[in-house]
Amino acid sequence: MIEQYEITLPEFRRGIHLITRHIENQLNTLPDKGMVNIFIKHTSAGLTINENADPSVRTDLEKYFDKNVPENAPYYRHTIEGADDMPAHIKSVITGASLTIPVTNGRLNLGTWQGIFLCEFRNHGGGRKLLITVFS
Amino acid sequence: MIEQYEITLPEFRRGIHLITRHIENQLNTLPDKGMVNIFIKHTSAGLTINENADPSVRTDLEKYFDKNVPENAPYYRHTIEGADDMPAHIKSVITGASLTIPVTNGRLNLGTWQGIFLCEFRNHGGGRKLLITVFS
Amino acid sequence: MIEQYEITLPEFRRGIHLITRHIENQLNTLPDKGMVNIFIKHTSAGLTINENADPSVRTDLEKYFDKNVPENAPYYRHTIEGADDMPAHIKSVITGASLTIPVTNGRLNLGTWQGIFLCEFRNHGGGRKLLITVFS
Repeated sequence: MIEQYEITLPEFRRGIHLITRHIENQLNTLPDKGMVNIFIKHTSAGLTINENADPSVRTDLEKYFDKNVPENAPYYRHTIEGADDMPAHIKSVITGASLTIPVTNGRLNLGTWQGIFLCEFRNHGGGRKLLITVFS
Repeated sequence: MIEQYEITLPEFRRGIHLITRHIENQLNTLPDKGMVNIFIKHTSAGLTINENADPSVRTDLEKYFDKNVPENAPYYRHTIEGADDMPAHIKSVITGASLTIPVTNGRLNLGTWQGIFLCEFRNHGGGRKLLITVFS
Repeated sequence: MIEQYEITLPEFRRGIHLITRHIENQLNTLPDKGMVNIFIKHTSAGLTINENADPSVRTDLEKYFDKNVPENAPYYRHTIEGADDMPAHIKSVITGASLTIPVTNGRLNLGTWQGIFLCEFRNHGGGRKLLITVFS
């Protein structure tokens, strides 16, 4: 059994955002045993899983990315879409475009401290489209 | 057909560890054709696949992470759980929280030199929980 | 329903290469709803998804990797296979060894600007083997 949902997230500002609830609210009844794949249909934003409790984890993560994938690196050639664009492509390669999460007893089987993050790497990325596939 | 196994690894010291055998030993008969997803239920350790032969690949990888995701970066705000904590969150974003591996003829269909690594990024991470989902 | 295909890509030079067509050409009819997992059976090359339009995204991404995962770092111990080898292992951990892509209406459900990249991190990596698993 496979179900798919395409959803569009509200527009988030540049930064790392906890979206576990946004995802869960879009899913109908989840199976007893299965898996969910969440795929972002963009190349300048990413998805990851990390600590859901202290928001400073998300701001520190953003600062790490900004420091280690700088804007205006002298070797960039893909600059026409703005200083935030090529770094966003690189950062999204580092995070990846999809998550695969087990489902158990009708729930995403995340660890206690795990949440789903949207990594919005553009200054004005717009509403991002996700394709969610549920297997059971 | 979906089967799930939750296992707890023995506690490993900080570092990168080959755990292919730990995984294989926990699985019952694998299908002729399918896929295994291995998901780590933590935000300060990760999973990756890399060279299983020379242990120096694992120590060099650990050194790379330590050098490029430093402890005590002046911009970290999430510091209350120790100097190794925020770097562990960042490193686990880089590696990712899950692996998806094809299964063929009852075996993980890894390349000759591929092994499964637990990346233990905390000094004292404890026994890490994995959720293994087998599809066939 | 699960189908698997093992394919060998032509040898690519060191760099980041768009291989969406190579993948699509290897797949028979794709299902109405499903998922494809593409797994690279190597530890010194990776797979990622990013912008398919401007080739400078791929060259900038390669330059980022070369700058941030240098050859001949003084702490490397795994040096016997050449200066490009240990960096290739590290880079492939950053990109990851597999992609999971939703399938809808018989097509890979990628975003408009998304393409599949082979990241060839070795100078002479040879023809890389991919294991493609289709779920429906």
